[in-house]
Amino acid sequence: MITRMSSLFLRTLREDPADAEVPSHKLLVRAGYVRRVAPGGYSWLPLGLRVLRNVEAIVREEMDAIGAQEIQFPALLPKEPYETTGRWTEYGPSLFRLVDRKGADYLLGPTHEELFALTVKGEYSSYKDYPVILYQIQTKYRDEARPRAGILRGREFIMKDSYSFDLDDEGLARSYELHRNAYLRIFDRLGLDYVVVAATSGAMGGSASEEFLAVAETGEDTYVRSTESEYAANVEAVVTPAPPEQSVEDKPAAQVHYTPNTPTIETLVDFLNAADLGRTFTAADTLKNVLVKTRMPGEEDWKLLGIGVPGDREVDMKRLEASLAPAEVALLEDSDFAANPFLVKGYIGPGALQANGVRYLVDPRVVRGTAWVTGADKPDHHVVDLVCGRDFTPDGTVEAAEVREGDPSPDGRGTLVTARGIEIGHIFQLGRKYTDAFEVDALGPDSKPIRITMGSYGIGVSRVVAAIAEQHHDELGLVWPRSVAPADVHVVIAGKDDAVTEGGERLAAQLAERGVRVLLDDRKATPGVKFADAELIGVPTIVVVGRGLAKGVVEVKDRATGERTEVAVDSAVGHLVDLVSGDATK
Amino acid sequence: MITRMSSLFLRTLREDPADAEVPSHKLLVRAGYVRRVAPGGYSWLPLGLRVLRNVEAIVREEMDAIGAQEIQFPALLPKEPYETTGRWTEYGPSLFRLVDRKGADYLLGPTHEELFALTVKGEYSSYKDYPVILYQIQTKYRDEARPRAGILRGREFIMKDSYSFDLDDEGLARSYELHRNAYLRIFDRLGLDYVVVAATSGAMGGSASEEFLAVAETGEDTYVRSTESEYAANVEAVVTPAPPEQSVEDKPAAQVHYTPNTPTIETLVDFLNAADLGRTFTAADTLKNVLVKTRMPGEEDWKLLGIGVPGDREVDMKRLEASLAPAEVALLEDSDFAANPFLVKGYIGPGALQANGVRYLVDPRVVRGTAWVTGADKPDHHVVDLVCGRDFTPDGTVEAAEVREGDPSPDGRGTLVTARGIEIGHIFQLGRKYTDAFEVDALGPDSKPIRITMGSYGIGVSRVVAAIAEQHHDELGLVWPRSVAPADVHVVIAGKDDAVTEGGERLAAQLAERGVRVLLDDRKATPGVKFADAELIGVPTIVVVGRGLAKGVVEVKDRATGERTEVAVDSAVGHLVDLVSGDATK
Repeated sequence: MITRMSSLFLRTLREDPADAEVPSHKLLVRAGYVRRVAPGGYSWLPLGLRVLRNVEAIVREEMDAIGAQEIQFPALLPKEPYETTGRWTEYGPSLFRLVDRKGADYLLGPTHEELFALTVKGEYSSYKDYPVILYQIQTKYRDEARPRAGILRGREFIMKDSYSFDLDDEGLARSYELHRNAYLRIFDRLGLDYVVVAATSGAMGGSASEEFLAVAETGEDTYVRSTESEYAANVEAVVTPAPPEQSVEDKPAAQVHYTPNTPTIETLVDFLNAADLGRTFTAADTLKNVLVKTRMPGEEDWKLLGIGVPGDREVDMKRLEASLAPAEVALLEDSDFAANPFLVKGYIGPGALQANGVRYLVDPRVVRGTAWVTGADKPDHHVVDLVCGRDFTPDGTVEAAEVREGDPSPDGRGTLVTARGIEIGHIFQLGRKYTDAFEVDALGPDSKPIRITMGSYGIGVSRVVAAIAEQHHDELGLVWPRSVAPADVHVVIAGKDDAVTEGGERLAAQLAERGVRVLLDDRKATPGVKFADAELIGVPTIVVVGRGLAKGVVEVKDRATGERTEVAVDSAVGHLVDLVSGDATK
Repeated sequence: MITRMSSLFLRTLREDPADAEVPSHKLLVRAGYVRRVAPGGYSWLPLGLRVLRNVEAIVREEMDAIGAQEIQFPALLPKEPYETTGRWTEYGPSLFRLVDRKGADYLLGPTHEELFALTVKGEYSSYKDYPVILYQIQTKYRDEARPRAGILRGREFIMKDSYSFDLDDEGLARSYELHRNAYLRIFDRLGLDYVVVAATSGAMGGSASEEFLAVAETGEDTYVRSTESEYAANVEAVVTPAPPEQSVEDKPAAQVHYTPNTPTIETLVDFLNAADLGRTFTAADTLKNVLVKTRMPGEEDWKLLGIGVPGDREVDMKRLEASLAPAEVALLEDSDFAANPFLVKGYIGPGALQANGVRYLVDPRVVRGTAWVTGADKPDHHVVDLVCGRDFTPDGTVEAAEVREGDPSPDGRGTLVTARGIEIGHIFQLGRKYTDAFEVDALGPDSKPIRITMGSYGIGVSRVVAAIAEQHHDELGLVWPRSVAPADVHVVIAGKDDAVTEGGERLAAQLAERGVRVLLDDRKATPGVKFADAELIGVPTIVVVGRGLAKGVVEVKDRATGERTEVAVDSAVGHLVDLVSGDATK
């Protein structure tokens, strides 16, 4: 196949678009792969659509290889199934909602758990039907608060979403593993540098969950990894190792101290160390109690919740929200303090919370037997040696404290460092949230119903295009891996005389005959313009047919390495076919 | 490729779905190709998705062959471009509208003229850039008042829409012709029996326009064709041949008659024939004046409009609306008559209309010199011999009268008969409606701007699947043309013993190795169930591996003709490969 640049619907830009901040966005626009149509809405121009289709094809091949079956749902979906599972409200303002001419409520699907569960329930009835994995490559919609970075975070995007249906947990674990391995193969084939991190499951519900992140400084997702092991996790998913429990017997009694002018942890620690208490305190010895309010989706009333974290750490609201999901979390307002006079701002302790029936969750480091300096529930007073399990008993633990570089790795090996990535895949063991909602059962061998268990697995297909561009570019332009490139060879006719034109045309025709996808620059433009566009567009192999032709050679340039080779015209076709297929089978 | 029915996500149904009326809907659901998800919203199950993709591939090949370039737009589109062209309001309740989290208005694209025009304007600037044809195969949305017949008329559907951009009318005519020929090839390859009919362009704007209709009794579109020529047209597009003009000199003077109790054309004609006027009248001699009101999109006030048609014909509101589009048309209410006392119900004549400034359009048969019996604008009175061009002068003609079987064909050859079809394609010469709206100009060779002219061309890709099913089925099930079938060969293992199973498996494996797409029925089911499913599913060639195997033969059945042939096992693969490729190259 030959694509002629003289008629290709492509205009490259010399300047970066004004709204672009990350390299993939700049380059995909400049090289004419995508165009902005609306906030978070992009059109795919011919070369962009080819890359997208190449990514789709790889995803499809690997999904088919694990026996997943492709189907396709509408994007415009009725409200009712999403109301049954609660997601109609849980999704909040991120869900595009609309009303049809008859006044019925609809949504634009953000993911399709409900529809897949209902479809399997509709078709299958016996345990013999299971397991089954279904998938679609389809357009999804999310009304992002801040669509950004071009196709990296759009409001309309293409996703491969698949769903596994199994009779039991072992089956689910197998389906999950099949997907995990398929994803490794897919992202390897796409030429991506990525990590697999432990993740939380957010509004999707469910338990075991991992994310695939393309390593990129421009990524929106922060994750941590161990300096000494394979451990990697989303910050939200980091599980704080709990220290061993201690005896409460040998601890000194709790003592309330008058601690004037100590509104902050720092001033408190200074005050205590200045007082003659016989030991030195650090911020880590204090217990900071932060009050928030929460409510479950669909509820109207907020409930108070106390969070206790070591005073040397801030509460990370994203971690707290992930821990409490699907509940909504908000900070207290002045009116909340006014309505609850037992909350003494700056001096809140576990005592008043528990006396007033406020649920109280603590950091996992706050284990039985640990002694803390914390608020005494009256102005200018703190209590020292308040011992967990003796003087107060939390209602449970919560992952709310910030994760810091240098924290011990949860697997016990090394310490954590932070890095950034782009979420390109996500796999979860959903469990029975959706099958419970829709009563998806199989009739077992004993004629008793078996509740089906589900997994949910996504790849951001359009985002992957941006992630590849984010990792594969240089200062001159895009540098596509061969597996997704919009063409195999970019033939540049560099010169005006007929021999050069004919030479380029002949080479392109011969390559096309051998199944090579050729992008042929047959435009009336200067060699300089053509070379610059070839670098910008990023086809892996560039062939320059120009002055060398008189000597019987063409120049073959590797876009990635910049390496140039002179190749005899007579052997160019064979050389290029080998190059393309050799690289392709790597 | 082998698809095993033992694990295929497919459950056939013995009963027709309750809501299905047409064969394609019944069979596509029963055979497990599609499932209803919402009113006008269907999911594509594995076999259905394959047929859909096969149709898409044929459409794509033929579009690429005329040099059209594929791109892809979002479906969720901002309001502004559609407001610029007026379609935001013109589309009325058929447009799905929604509001994002920031309160901005969006729509789900019904077609993309606006976006394509804007994109071409954004990329191209010189006359040297043109012509260009762009297309997409994409999901479209229309909030149909009555979604029906499964995927025949959905609210979410897949369409190939393409747009041509030319410098002048000759270029547009060429682009139109390229599309017309591509469409002929596409529908031929899809195995469709279809007609190309003259059409009106409805809300799209524009001039020359033709529709491709798949012939089907169950179709929603009525069209007419000539008994003696190739002429075919949408009823809305039939142009009434005008009779020759006549002299007004030799006509008797108009005379008002007292015609009591003649509220209908029939009673009027009887009255006149009973009176002694020296000649016989028929309903065709009377001129019936029908009053409607119209307003243009965006206007608030209605205007009266008088329509004069021969008394032997009803006004066809669809034809009238098509003639007046994009104006909205409504019948008068009692309050309208009250507000306009010069309208004497049942006795309205041209006189009062023209005296009161009401626009008056007549049927093309009402030419200069024709004499009519019509209302005299007072109760119980009619006027005889009111001559067009002497006693009244219409403001123009309008295609509003019903078209009837037996009417002369507009091309002068034969008479019209009516038939029904499914609209599967539509091509228009849009002209400059959209390029005017967005000022899409090319800089000409003389540095002056040239306003670009557009064509718009659509194929209902998902509807085509239903149209094929509508034409290709029998009482047992679907009968797919080979070009779109979900598999090439359906191998049925009919028997439980190991030799039969192994024979079927071996045949399937050998066929797959030769590139044949095999659907293999390896289920634990009776031969009867398997045969019934094979007929229902409709793969063109069915191979039964069963008892004959002991004699060294398998049975090859042609699904379309029902013809059965015994073929030696040893030569079966060769025979089937020939069959598949021979048919495929037909």
